[in-house]
Amino acid sequence: MPESPLPPGSTIGILGGGQLGRMLAMAAARLGLRTHIYSDEANAPAFDVAAISTVGAYEDKEALARFAGAVDVVTCEFENVPAETLEAAARVAPVFPRAKSFAVAQDRLAEKDFMRGLGIAVAPYAPVDTLDDLRGALARVKFPALLKTRRLGYDGKGQVLIRAEADAAAALEAIGHAPAVLEGMVLFEREVSVIAVRGQDGAFKVYNLIENVHQNGILAISRVPAESPAGIVAEATSIAAKIAEALGHVGVLCVELFQREGERPDLIVNEIAPRVHNSGHWTLDACVISQFENHIRAIAGWPLGDTARHNDAVMTNLIGSDVERWREFAAQPATAVHLYGKAEARPGRKMGHATRLYPKT
Amino acid sequence: MPESPLPPGSTIGILGGGQLGRMLAMAAARLGLRTHIYSDEANAPAFDVAAISTVGAYEDKEALARFAGAVDVVTCEFENVPAETLEAAARVAPVFPRAKSFAVAQDRLAEKDFMRGLGIAVAPYAPVDTLDDLRGALARVKFPALLKTRRLGYDGKGQVLIRAEADAAAALEAIGHAPAVLEGMVLFEREVSVIAVRGQDGAFKVYNLIENVHQNGILAISRVPAESPAGIVAEATSIAAKIAEALGHVGVLCVELFQREGERPDLIVNEIAPRVHNSGHWTLDACVISQFENHIRAIAGWPLGDTARHNDAVMTNLIGSDVERWREFAAQPATAVHLYGKAEARPGRKMGHATRLYPKT
Repeated sequence: MPESPLPPGSTIGILGGGQLGRMLAMAAARLGLRTHIYSDEANAPAFDVAAISTVGAYEDKEALARFAGAVDVVTCEFENVPAETLEAAARVAPVFPRAKSFAVAQDRLAEKDFMRGLGIAVAPYAPVDTLDDLRGALARVKFPALLKTRRLGYDGKGQVLIRAEADAAAALEAIGHAPAVLEGMVLFEREVSVIAVRGQDGAFKVYNLIENVHQNGILAISRVPAESPAGIVAEATSIAAKIAEALGHVGVLCVELFQREGERPDLIVNEIAPRVHNSGHWTLDACVISQFENHIRAIAGWPLGDTARHNDAVMTNLIGSDVERWREFAAQPATAVHLYGKAEARPGRKMGHATRLYPKT
Repeated sequence: MPESPLPPGSTIGILGGGQLGRMLAMAAARLGLRTHIYSDEANAPAFDVAAISTVGAYEDKEALARFAGAVDVVTCEFENVPAETLEAAARVAPVFPRAKSFAVAQDRLAEKDFMRGLGIAVAPYAPVDTLDDLRGALARVKFPALLKTRRLGYDGKGQVLIRAEADAAAALEAIGHAPAVLEGMVLFEREVSVIAVRGQDGAFKVYNLIENVHQNGILAISRVPAESPAGIVAEATSIAAKIAEALGHVGVLCVELFQREGERPDLIVNEIAPRVHNSGHWTLDACVISQFENHIRAIAGWPLGDTARHNDAVMTNLIGSDVERWREFAAQPATAVHLYGKAEARPGRKMGHATRLYPKT
């Protein structure tokens, strides 16, 4: 049942204080909403733009209950928030997205089973708990294959490439014998993603299809619009709508897809994120309403904002020492630089991004 | 001499915590810069998005010195900051814009003399300190005329319309016998404004010319682009450049102008504001880099950002109880709603604004 919209002056609670929480907090502030950030990290980047900040462990149920009691709605900047954390907050305040969105997105096996149940194509896969499972799975899923932990993988972490059966034992060792999924490698032409948003009333909107380039397992560049046939764009939208509906999702949802070659190109779902996503950062500069504001609008029960793009865009992540090039990016025409306020530029760390706009095609 | 650019992680000090300070703070955060807001008001709107907040009087030189000592550069969201306040800060940290920009903008007489010195047209005017002055001035400046206090007028406050000589004594009474200027009324076709930005190195950029509609002395609507002949656009840019250069201005500068009717339309300067301005709020949504970010870039010594508009725009101020219409504006297509986080919607109080985008003409 839709909640009534939170009026200006209400407080949005955000679990997580990284760059996503930071950009969510700024989007909320635009709407006259206050934010309270809960993070397990002192000096979290989002603290600098939030009305209230709490440093606490995600396992500290008392602190979480106090936090939830001080806000009007709770949301998350990351999907790997423990179920108990969400439950502790949900006892005190509405939490959006709901538990099901997290449960499915947190577990690669549940995610793939969920897609299959909806008739949505995914890579060939098999659950792996033991070496015997892995050997059996390798017999069905062709080489090369990827062994991925069911939980807590991101930016290419928690996964191992298996090229031959002889690699099996070492691969299982490399992921610490964690519950896993073996996935067949997919030959794809390009990686695309859909940023969708669904309201408490079931209203649904998508942004334009995005083409993504990863380097070393980390998103490097997103381009909009993606170079894809019209049929692919419609298919991607339909997949995202089906997923959002089946999850009863509220907020932004990202669906990452592989576009396969062939006479009739098609899409298979790689993974979903029940939150604002790096591949949607361009919406800050190329759309009237960004993914961040639409997430806030959805969880606050506001009307969803316009997702139309007014410009084409190329978003470049500034990873690790890339951030030292801030002056160069700041001097480029039609370019917005976004830096996340992180002190230490560790390798692989997302420090900022730059979006360059081009006339709409 | 240009300072070297402040690196990400530096702290911008802002005097004033209203909506302009709030939007400046968010623009700074986008660039990875922290903000410290100094306001004489507890619960100032900008506090919600600033890393650090100080409540203090603008006359408290010790508090100001501590504030300036804790930041890397100081700027202001309002022009009526006392000269002593600026001096107290400037003894400890760089302050941009510099004192001259404030001195000229704070005093209507100094402002008009400054324009005349630059050969820039202004309304006929005369200084008024006494009733004798006023009578003499009324003999030269035709009726109707406006009597305006030299200092501290804004949004139509501190001014009285004089229709006949008999009104003279009452008019002077109405402004409390404050030092004043008598201005001839100008018959104009439209009000326009230029938002310009000048860097520490003298780099200069302008946004597109804006057409403004005032109601009850308060800005109601701004439209971009202004309906003006090309010659008028060039003249407005040239006037803004001349003023910025002569002031040695650093940061955003707004020049409000009257466009006069006739065979050869021309412009006269109404007033200037040495700061981000309500008539530039549309730049948040219709430009790659907003007036707020360009002000921060200028005072931080960064390269100025692109001022090109990618869309036409109409900005509507939400004044007083207008803010109750937030849901209606939030549901409009291609519309961004900005609310300032003010609790009490007093009549005449600027509570927010909404910008609707249109395809670029």
